[in-house]
Amino acid sequence: MKRAVVVFSGGQDSTTCLIQALHQYDEVHCVTFDYGQRHRAEIEIAQQLAVKLGARAHKTLDVGLLNELAVSSLTRDSIPVPDYDPDASGIPSTFVPGRNILFLTLTAIYAYQVQAEAIITGVCETDFSGYPDCRDEFVKALHQAVNLGMASNIRFETPLMWLNKAETWALADRWGKLDLVRNETLTCYNGIKGDGCGECAACNLRANGLNQYLADKVGVMAQMKRKTGLN
Amino acid sequence: MKRAVVVFSGGQDSTTCLIQALHQYDEVHCVTFDYGQRHRAEIEIAQQLAVKLGARAHKTLDVGLLNELAVSSLTRDSIPVPDYDPDASGIPSTFVPGRNILFLTLTAIYAYQVQAEAIITGVCETDFSGYPDCRDEFVKALHQAVNLGMASNIRFETPLMWLNKAETWALADRWGKLDLVRNETLTCYNGIKGDGCGECAACNLRANGLNQYLADKVGVMAQMKRKTGLN
Repeated sequence: MKRAVVVFSGGQDSTTCLIQALHQYDEVHCVTFDYGQRHRAEIEIAQQLAVKLGARAHKTLDVGLLNELAVSSLTRDSIPVPDYDPDASGIPSTFVPGRNILFLTLTAIYAYQVQAEAIITGVCETDFSGYPDCRDEFVKALHQAVNLGMASNIRFETPLMWLNKAETWALADRWGKLDLVRNETLTCYNGIKGDGCGECAACNLRANGLNQYLADKVGVMAQMKRKTGLN
Repeated sequence: MKRAVVVFSGGQDSTTCLIQALHQYDEVHCVTFDYGQRHRAEIEIAQQLAVKLGARAHKTLDVGLLNELAVSSLTRDSIPVPDYDPDASGIPSTFVPGRNILFLTLTAIYAYQVQAEAIITGVCETDFSGYPDCRDEFVKALHQAVNLGMASNIRFETPLMWLNKAETWALADRWGKLDLVRNETLTCYNGIKGDGCGECAACNLRANGLNQYLADKVGVMAQMKRKTGLN
């Protein structure tokens, strides 16, 4: 019995990871993180998609404590943290670095509990958005630390690490689910499913990738297969 | 301005770490984790001790989500996790491995936000209690991963890593705080401050260490100084 856990937001990337995992594992679990900032719709869509696609279990974890670690929160504590000037250091007061460190750690703990052999995350160094905890070198280091810390041997899989958005669309198509990913996932910052609002940065990135794939299906598919080793 | 963050429970070990940190840093912050299992008294004692000893700030973080990751919780979800037989695998259903991975990760995120140069934890390999996430090798690996993930350079200090309990008492005495640690910290599983109930495993370990130190103050103090490099 091969079992895996997918870090699942209901967006394009993690849905594509889930689709592939369901082909490669006997049993797939999904973990979704709720940290208040996201549209409620996003969590509902994730839950519905997990069931529809055939995940064996779906767990939503409340990580609201991340907001307690934002600089803006630290300054209104019982013993208040001294005044920091976020502007001076260039850190926005509500941005909390290390978010993905936390998500992967919690997913690995979940995986340990359900005796899964792998966790799967859709992070991607190609679309590297300035978050160092999405880079390959970091994921490998955390894999090492987490397995030492639990005396475990859980794989960390990052199937999208080296793909661009067009190739990620090709991967969904490879598994016969391009339309499903296009119509039923939520990536839009304004919380609109499918092709979204068409104006936010997330919609633009997604649409550009799709257009690039549709303009050269054969070429992009071949590129994706070369990178992933899929046939 | 040298700033550090101490993982602080209000027990003997972390209080000794806090006392030393207050001598070695200009400003010390404390972080305490609330995960429901502990006596409320423990958190109140931690808060009072942090103020009394001179910490600049004290933050209590609610990590109740750890309980959501216990096997016993996973089986009563909206889409329930399949039946696992914890007895078969030898895992108690309420034990969550990886707890210290989570605590250190959150402390490092806090340290990043307040621009501290170090986090300090009282974990100890000598009294190694079966938790792999208290071992030196693990702490070093997590240090590497967390700093890669935040593009930061935060030290992970473990001043008690190689000390036995008698030597930890000597360390408190070295900083002139043996009586304070003895009378005002809480280690007892039954929630009784100071020398505690005298019957639980924690009280026994603590009392044995203290008796060993009091029986040979000069020898144990010398041993502690040799290990720590203190004069």
